[in-house]
Amino acid sequence: MNSLNNNPKRVAVIGASGYGGIQSIRLLENHPSFEVSFLGGFNTIGKKWNELCPFLPLKNNPIVQKVDPDKIAESSDFVLLSLPNGLSNELIPELFKRNLRVVDLSADFRYRSLEKWKEIYKNVPKSLNRKDYKLCEEAVYGVPEIYSNAISKARLVASPGCFPTSSILPLMPFLKQGIIETDGIIIDSKSGTSGGGRVPKEHLLLAESSESICAYSVIGHRHTSEIEQELSSFSGMNIQLQFTPHLIPMVRGILSTIYVRLRDPGLTAEDCRTVLQTVYQNYKTIEILPVGKYPSTKWVRYTNRVMIGIELDIRTGRLILVSAIDNLIKGQSGQAIQSLNIMAGFPDYMGLPLATYYP
Amino acid sequence: MNSLNNNPKRVAVIGASGYGGIQSIRLLENHPSFEVSFLGGFNTIGKKWNELCPFLPLKNNPIVQKVDPDKIAESSDFVLLSLPNGLSNELIPELFKRNLRVVDLSADFRYRSLEKWKEIYKNVPKSLNRKDYKLCEEAVYGVPEIYSNAISKARLVASPGCFPTSSILPLMPFLKQGIIETDGIIIDSKSGTSGGGRVPKEHLLLAESSESICAYSVIGHRHTSEIEQELSSFSGMNIQLQFTPHLIPMVRGILSTIYVRLRDPGLTAEDCRTVLQTVYQNYKTIEILPVGKYPSTKWVRYTNRVMIGIELDIRTGRLILVSAIDNLIKGQSGQAIQSLNIMAGFPDYMGLPLATYYP
Amino acid sequence: MNSLNNNPKRVAVIGASGYGGIQSIRLLENHPSFEVSFLGGFNTIGKKWNELCPFLPLKNNPIVQKVDPDKIAESSDFVLLSLPNGLSNELIPELFKRNLRVVDLSADFRYRSLEKWKEIYKNVPKSLNRKDYKLCEEAVYGVPEIYSNAISKARLVASPGCFPTSSILPLMPFLKQGIIETDGIIIDSKSGTSGGGRVPKEHLLLAESSESICAYSVIGHRHTSEIEQELSSFSGMNIQLQFTPHLIPMVRGILSTIYVRLRDPGLTAEDCRTVLQTVYQNYKTIEILPVGKYPSTKWVRYTNRVMIGIELDIRTGRLILVSAIDNLIKGQSGQAIQSLNIMAGFPDYMGLPLATYYP
Amino acid sequence: MNSLNNNPKRVAVIGASGYGGIQSIRLLENHPSFEVSFLGGFNTIGKKWNELCPFLPLKNNPIVQKVDPDKIAESSDFVLLSLPNGLSNELIPELFKRNLRVVDLSADFRYRSLEKWKEIYKNVPKSLNRKDYKLCEEAVYGVPEIYSNAISKARLVASPGCFPTSSILPLMPFLKQGIIETDGIIIDSKSGTSGGGRVPKEHLLLAESSESICAYSVIGHRHTSEIEQELSSFSGMNIQLQFTPHLIPMVRGILSTIYVRLRDPGLTAEDCRTVLQTVYQNYKTIEILPVGKYPSTKWVRYTNRVMIGIELDIRTGRLILVSAIDNLIKGQSGQAIQSLNIMAGFPDYMGLPLATYYP
Repeated sequence: MNSLNNNPKRVAVIGASGYGGIQSIRLLENHPSFEVSFLGGFNTIGKKWNELCPFLPLKNNPIVQKVDPDKIAESSDFVLLSLPNGLSNELIPELFKRNLRVVDLSADFRYRSLEKWKEIYKNVPKSLNRKDYKLCEEAVYGVPEIYSNAISKARLVASPGCFPTSSILPLMPFLKQGIIETDGIIIDSKSGTSGGGRVPKEHLLLAESSESICAYSVIGHRHTSEIEQELSSFSGMNIQLQFTPHLIPMVRGILSTIYVRLRDPGLTAEDCRTVLQTVYQNYKTIEILPVGKYPSTKWVRYTNRVMIGIELDIRTGRLILVSAIDNLIKGQSGQAIQSLNIMAGFPDYMGLPLATYYP
Repeated sequence: MNSLNNNPKRVAVIGASGYGGIQSIRLLENHPSFEVSFLGGFNTIGKKWNELCPFLPLKNNPIVQKVDPDKIAESSDFVLLSLPNGLSNELIPELFKRNLRVVDLSADFRYRSLEKWKEIYKNVPKSLNRKDYKLCEEAVYGVPEIYSNAISKARLVASPGCFPTSSILPLMPFLKQGIIETDGIIIDSKSGTSGGGRVPKEHLLLAESSESICAYSVIGHRHTSEIEQELSSFSGMNIQLQFTPHLIPMVRGILSTIYVRLRDPGLTAEDCRTVLQTVYQNYKTIEILPVGKYPSTKWVRYTNRVMIGIELDIRTGRLILVSAIDNLIKGQSGQAIQSLNIMAGFPDYMGLPLATYYP
Repeated sequence: MNSLNNNPKRVAVIGASGYGGIQSIRLLENHPSFEVSFLGGFNTIGKKWNELCPFLPLKNNPIVQKVDPDKIAESSDFVLLSLPNGLSNELIPELFKRNLRVVDLSADFRYRSLEKWKEIYKNVPKSLNRKDYKLCEEAVYGVPEIYSNAISKARLVASPGCFPTSSILPLMPFLKQGIIETDGIIIDSKSGTSGGGRVPKEHLLLAESSESICAYSVIGHRHTSEIEQELSSFSGMNIQLQFTPHLIPMVRGILSTIYVRLRDPGLTAEDCRTVLQTVYQNYKTIEILPVGKYPSTKWVRYTNRVMIGIELDIRTGRLILVSAIDNLIKGQSGQAIQSLNIMAGFPDYMGLPLATYYP
Repeated sequence: MNSLNNNPKRVAVIGASGYGGIQSIRLLENHPSFEVSFLGGFNTIGKKWNELCPFLPLKNNPIVQKVDPDKIAESSDFVLLSLPNGLSNELIPELFKRNLRVVDLSADFRYRSLEKWKEIYKNVPKSLNRKDYKLCEEAVYGVPEIYSNAISKARLVASPGCFPTSSILPLMPFLKQGIIETDGIIIDSKSGTSGGGRVPKEHLLLAESSESICAYSVIGHRHTSEIEQELSSFSGMNIQLQFTPHLIPMVRGILSTIYVRLRDPGLTAEDCRTVLQTVYQNYKTIEILPVGKYPSTKWVRYTNRVMIGIELDIRTGRLILVSAIDNLIKGQSGQAIQSLNIMAGFPDYMGLPLATYYP
């Protein structure tokens, strides 16, 4: 923690050994006004952090602790939950009782409708037992550039993942203003393998995924319905879209190539750029490139930034949006801390990396 | 050359130090009924092959020679041209005079209309001087699984490149049979960096292209019009489509994710699979995967094979085709030799690798 | 199987789903005089091969069978064992009773002394129960370019792995002829991640091992003693050496940089090259590069070839040998089939790939 | 520039479009007490920075200027030179006349003896014309953890490159204290491809260098003599060593595996660790790992840190040191800014990244 602030806000991080947890701790360590006040885990209770993560030594070498709401409340103002799906929902009411405010990295509260969540996440153990309908309705979907006001007052922010973030941000302004057709949207996304997490799986081995690209879950990927929920709310229409994720041989980054059709054939690419720039002009975390320039994921790696390229094919009347993010920062931990910044009354971009190292 | 055949057909390879040339020589060396009879070059005249390519030593260590049509005619039955665009068209008439048959890897004869070629390749030096309209009409577009008959009798085969091959093969049967809408076709392609060739360019450096993905030429890529020419001829309609290439951090392979809409909503994914299987059943070079299985480019790496996956989204009425090839074999040299096989009266797959090494 | 031979030799492959098994089947399929006659497994019994490995479809789509010595004997002439360490030694006597000859890819018979094996592999379950001292003495260490005669008559060949192969072949001639000091040998090896196998482990994930290099087992790596056994036998001295393996971000390949000191300071680099060339002149599988040319692992990828570079530093009197192999072919399955070739009376290189695809 | 400081020191960066320049600007932008006050170039004069480097936009979008010593003196306190070898030495006297202090990233002043430089860099144009013997003697070799005092007062710091940095830091304490033999030192180094710079070269293409590893300049690499100069000065002996660089398929990072022999066989690995820790205890930029832990380059990527692992092989009496750095930060720009920090009277680590992002 940088000691630029005499009274830093204290953040408990629960679930610290996955990529989400590691990344959150890394970012909070460099934040001028937050400090990691509690490290909670499950399989690693009692272990010292610096032995678990020699690549990211912390000054005081904290010990991973059992998740005890009382202890968390003693030490912390905010809680960042980085748990597998289906585990947050029992813990959160306990944290609320102790006046803690929560940002949750799991999918548990990303749907306003618990029924919808149960349909999509039916394979999660005990998913059918959940009854926290009200909490689902209360939770704020944590895209800071869209829901800033709600986030500032929220008790619970459901921070979205990488594919929805890279899809929703470029599309929102066009849907809200009715500029594009709501039918026929195609999102072709390409993700690095860190999106699959740190638990070893065969298809994520370097020997398997290097020198290869494949599509997966071509229909029915979980994130399809999450993206549809958000886009539908912007447009007021029931949107059904095509979302195809691909696994590509790199560690970090998501590129989404988005194909939509303009309603008004008179619009130019520059007009479309203006739409995006106007909506996002106050956000340092979003950069709209000049028409005809397309982002590489390398340009946003290790940053909390979205870069968006724009192209218009007048032959086909189709607008093509290309968005690039770092899947573990703007697509995960960085975005969660961006929400924490807003909850704590700080500028949303505070303490978050905005410039990449290159190459 | 394997000596299984007493009278191997003799092939001259012109332009041998790029990836196309290297790959052609590698494949011909292992072919039971072809032999490399002449190595022609420009910048490397007089050099010994094994010094240029210590990684691919040839038994007799041939010397790269000046491109002399008489000498080629003395030594060879066929000519494989692997030259930059705009250089083949002056050489070919000389080869024809000497009764040589030619497979050309460049783009010079891929358009039946020379005017169209001049429009697309206007930046090629001397492109405006070309007057060989008839030769353009005569040349056969070299997709062996589609134009086998014409190839068998051709003097000149214009062998297509990687993006068109991966796009045309999955779409042809559906367009010929009028199963899909000709409007609204989207081809989202992802290519390894070897597609950019062996001449050093900044964006192809490992330091630049590794750990990154980007789209390029989002509108107006040269191959768009080539794909449109072929698809239009299958359907009898003037097709305009969306084609977006992406550069991904791997050496070899192209994956094309193709989005089309079914005309008849009553068709199932299995029906669509049957369409493809029926058309291509006699070709060992094309494998149609079971519905719901999608190919990785790793599955076809170092082979002359196309793998195609099929998915149907009944919510949106959209058919999604995913095709994978090795860009330097089925997308370049292997396909050219497949045409040579047909021209020489051999089985089309003869001597070409069909099984990958894994991983 | 190519049907060039009317009476192909029949090979049972036991343990087929790891990289060793997959690679063996791939190579045997393309071999002109072997055929895979039996596929034996454990966890995958009853499954069809083409579902397990859609990337390597076999024509008859065989079913993985229980390992039954009688059935193996009915169908097969040879057995290729690709099992985890500690499992082969119970099966082999049963195979011997049925007159089968065996090539074993595990470490179980690589030590002439069973006591030494127990010391090194003490963590293998049941290692202490082994009593097959005689079998250990009988087994032939399967480096075909060194032990060709013994292999031709062997019942059991213990095929060595990647690090020893890349270390022993360049050093053997110099030690046999007493040209180098037996003290102070340093082998600095760099391996791709496929050497770690196909069972998922955290450190082999692309997200972990890509864009990184590390040393591991800097002292006491298992292969140290295996290399020392062989080198000691060549020199007649008890050799103790430094062997440091490194994990590098690529799928395949091993490069070993070997530092030794010449006994006779009058020797030149060319002299040293002559030593290697003379010893290995009859082997197509070994290529000695000109002095000052060093191999890339890419030059031998997907081949059964070793490339060796030579350099002599007259300032320090040190000879530096750089050897490159494909760890899964010359370092594993290819070398095993090279031994099978010798056992069957075929040329040792028969049916094995010797030229790489490039790039 | 963060505006934490009211009077930031002003730094001119000359030669800004290579990796050294880009990286320097990136680091200075985030530094609390430096600002980039002048951007000088050659081929890009008059161009706006944000068009040259859209991936690293600067707030005021400065224009690249002609290198004019008067203008530099007007705007700047310090000059960071990031030029090809052989170009700095004419500019520096002009900068001195104007009371500017200089950190030079080239090799021009890394040798105290200009004659030695001329011998090693004889291929640099005009190298024989140099007569600035005194300047060579005045220049301070810029390893901040070793030459901190001299750097603080220097007019000219010759900042060393990646291989020497990763070699000198682990060895210095042992040589100074006479703990290891000065004869027989072997440094086996592995570098990512960004070390080869941004100018396109065939062997640095992803298609060539990915999925491959090779050694290069096995004898006579330029950096050998630079490392020898430094090590000799520590030990008082004329050291001749073995240095073998390797190119590995990753963007950033160097790992050096260093083999030396202890003089006193009674020392333990822990003793050796204590030697390193004691010498470097005041430097946040150096971390000595526990005995038996070896660093991955990923652990120091995007940081100005060196991690050193230690192992002692009692069988051979050899000490093995493994050092990892980011070649473009601690091995280049970061180290240069570390020297600038010292020259400006700041803490040496100020504003430099010390924790990696992971993975």
